[in-house]
Amino acid sequence: MTSQNGDEMVVTPWKVSGEVDYDRLVQKFGTQLLTDDLLNRIKKHAGFLHLQLRRGFFFSHRDFDWILDQYESGNPPVLYTGRGPSGKIHLGHILPWIFTKYLQDAFNTKLYFQLTDDEKFLIHPEFDMKKMSDITYDNILDIIAVGFDPRKTKIITDVKDISSLYELALKVARHVNFSTVKAVFGFEDASNIGIIFFPAIQAAPAFLESSLANRNVPCLIPAAIDQDPYWRVARDVAQKLGYYKPAQIHSKFLPGLGKGGKMSSSMPETCIFMTDTPNVAKKKIMNAFTGGQATVVEQKRLGGNPSICPVGLYNYYLFEGDDKAAGELWKNCGSGAILCGECKILLAEKIKVFLLEHQKKRVEAKETIEKYLM
Amino acid sequence: MTSQNGDEMVVTPWKVSGEVDYDRLVQKFGTQLLTDDLLNRIKKHAGFLHLQLRRGFFFSHRDFDWILDQYESGNPPVLYTGRGPSGKIHLGHILPWIFTKYLQDAFNTKLYFQLTDDEKFLIHPEFDMKKMSDITYDNILDIIAVGFDPRKTKIITDVKDISSLYELALKVARHVNFSTVKAVFGFEDASNIGIIFFPAIQAAPAFLESSLANRNVPCLIPAAIDQDPYWRVARDVAQKLGYYKPAQIHSKFLPGLGKGGKMSSSMPETCIFMTDTPNVAKKKIMNAFTGGQATVVEQKRLGGNPSICPVGLYNYYLFEGDDKAAGELWKNCGSGAILCGECKILLAEKIKVFLLEHQKKRVEAKETIEKYLM
Repeated sequence: MTSQNGDEMVVTPWKVSGEVDYDRLVQKFGTQLLTDDLLNRIKKHAGFLHLQLRRGFFFSHRDFDWILDQYESGNPPVLYTGRGPSGKIHLGHILPWIFTKYLQDAFNTKLYFQLTDDEKFLIHPEFDMKKMSDITYDNILDIIAVGFDPRKTKIITDVKDISSLYELALKVARHVNFSTVKAVFGFEDASNIGIIFFPAIQAAPAFLESSLANRNVPCLIPAAIDQDPYWRVARDVAQKLGYYKPAQIHSKFLPGLGKGGKMSSSMPETCIFMTDTPNVAKKKIMNAFTGGQATVVEQKRLGGNPSICPVGLYNYYLFEGDDKAAGELWKNCGSGAILCGECKILLAEKIKVFLLEHQKKRVEAKETIEKYLM
Repeated sequence: MTSQNGDEMVVTPWKVSGEVDYDRLVQKFGTQLLTDDLLNRIKKHAGFLHLQLRRGFFFSHRDFDWILDQYESGNPPVLYTGRGPSGKIHLGHILPWIFTKYLQDAFNTKLYFQLTDDEKFLIHPEFDMKKMSDITYDNILDIIAVGFDPRKTKIITDVKDISSLYELALKVARHVNFSTVKAVFGFEDASNIGIIFFPAIQAAPAFLESSLANRNVPCLIPAAIDQDPYWRVARDVAQKLGYYKPAQIHSKFLPGLGKGGKMSSSMPETCIFMTDTPNVAKKKIMNAFTGGQATVVEQKRLGGNPSICPVGLYNYYLFEGDDKAAGELWKNCGSGAILCGECKILLAEKIKVFLLEHQKKRVEAKETIEKYLM
């Protein structure tokens, strides 16, 4: 699949590359764009519209309208999201979690947060269980720091909590064959038998609340759109098991600080990690690729392009909470009224506040972690 | 593979058909025959040689000599065997368990007994978890009735006890790919992803004691020889995980009461179930196929063939504990000195005693079951 400018766009659960054309992605995946009507309904329940909705970072869905119907008729959804613990948490990870907390507050509902330490162990031959356990603990601190309600949040770590998942995973697995996971996830004959089974473990939490409550509970999964294929398998199996299909609300990808591609730990200099000091983060920002012109004179004359600029996009999606100020920043970039250096300093200052606050909560999380575990 | 008389011999973990030529099977699988030297060594430790060894029902092994070396140098093995709970227990199942108890007593050692309810759930679309649980409980009663030492026996039920197995199974799974299980177990692209993963769950108990004890403990698996391929995968992976390869001691198959094939629940009229009343068992025996001649006159003139006769083989392998009496029965059949009806009545009487004793212990097992569970 090639985007209009000729870069090859690849979006699968295991790879995102090229320039992503989200309209074509929605068309290809067969999902729905979020409409003003849906936004108004969630706004009514939440009391406000989250900036990730206002700015279109969460932009697509499957059956989110039905989730709202269910909620409005007294059947609130359970939320389910997850994390593959293979390293440190960065901005690209935390964004959808911040949005998930907004949904938890809006619906006043339960969240299952799955840590797929089994998956990461299976695909990283260099990891041992001690390493997995260390990474997982570290990631859990970041999750808790987001501020989820401890009375309504259960963090599932697959290896430790397998007894809560295995029976459901078997029920799923009985309906999914190798041909299907080969087609959906790109597995091969050389794939190990653990990772082949893993999609069943990943699907299980979508049905966990229904299974425990012994009644059909709607499930809403907030996640980046590249995870959609996982849930298509879960949706297909749901019907066979007599459960509701899990609904989804999809985000775009947060770009890294380099040119193109989503933020990825494999290029640490283009990532802002949640444990970076403000100074380290500032250095990365000051070195970032931007959508600006090569010289100050050119920038003032031609203006920049904020839509391809990580600095502009971070301000827009995450850090400038005031819509008017965000709009002006965007406009001033385009008109050349602001220079890249100024924009970077603005962002670095906001990120400093954000990181320090997160890191404080991250330390506090060590005291409250037990409340969140299964 | 074709046996010498032209019947196609098929021996895989999921199918045994045709006339089994055990010498050729040992050659094909690359296992070793039990030697007199090995028998003498186990006799010394057990105090006597079990009739299943004296009569050659257990006949083949991998590394059993090494197990004896380890035992004799103060490093006793753990035993591991299992059962796929898909229905009632019959004589063909219980035979190796009786032998396993003998080994437990001989080595005064721990036994892990795995019930693969996950496997059976995955391959039986008609089973729900309630049904699995009922069958499993029922099978556990038969296991306990065999008389294993409750202080040294742990019955693992995969679904309930998955938390004891999953981490080990992941370690195994990382080293086993789809190509391997396709070749060894006959899986296909249409196989479900649960059963593809299952060999890792089946291998895990072989390493459980080493994992729990945090030192390398030899493992000995007594099982019918058709299960050998499972353990070849486990043996291959063992080295990669730094564990000892599990050793094995292999039995032949117990024939059913019909003509040819191993005893199978799918032909209940040719099976003696452990819950059959003595009268039901007697009827089945009286209707059994035998190695005798068509008429009394012919039988007296030509004699019968006990080696193809389930009645003769049952007496020989299981029910006539006295070697001299067993030998005479065999000889008298061949010479025509005894008729099939007499042999059947002898067997029915012995089976009556055996079943009544087992069924008494089976009832008592309901009181002691908790002692055996993980």
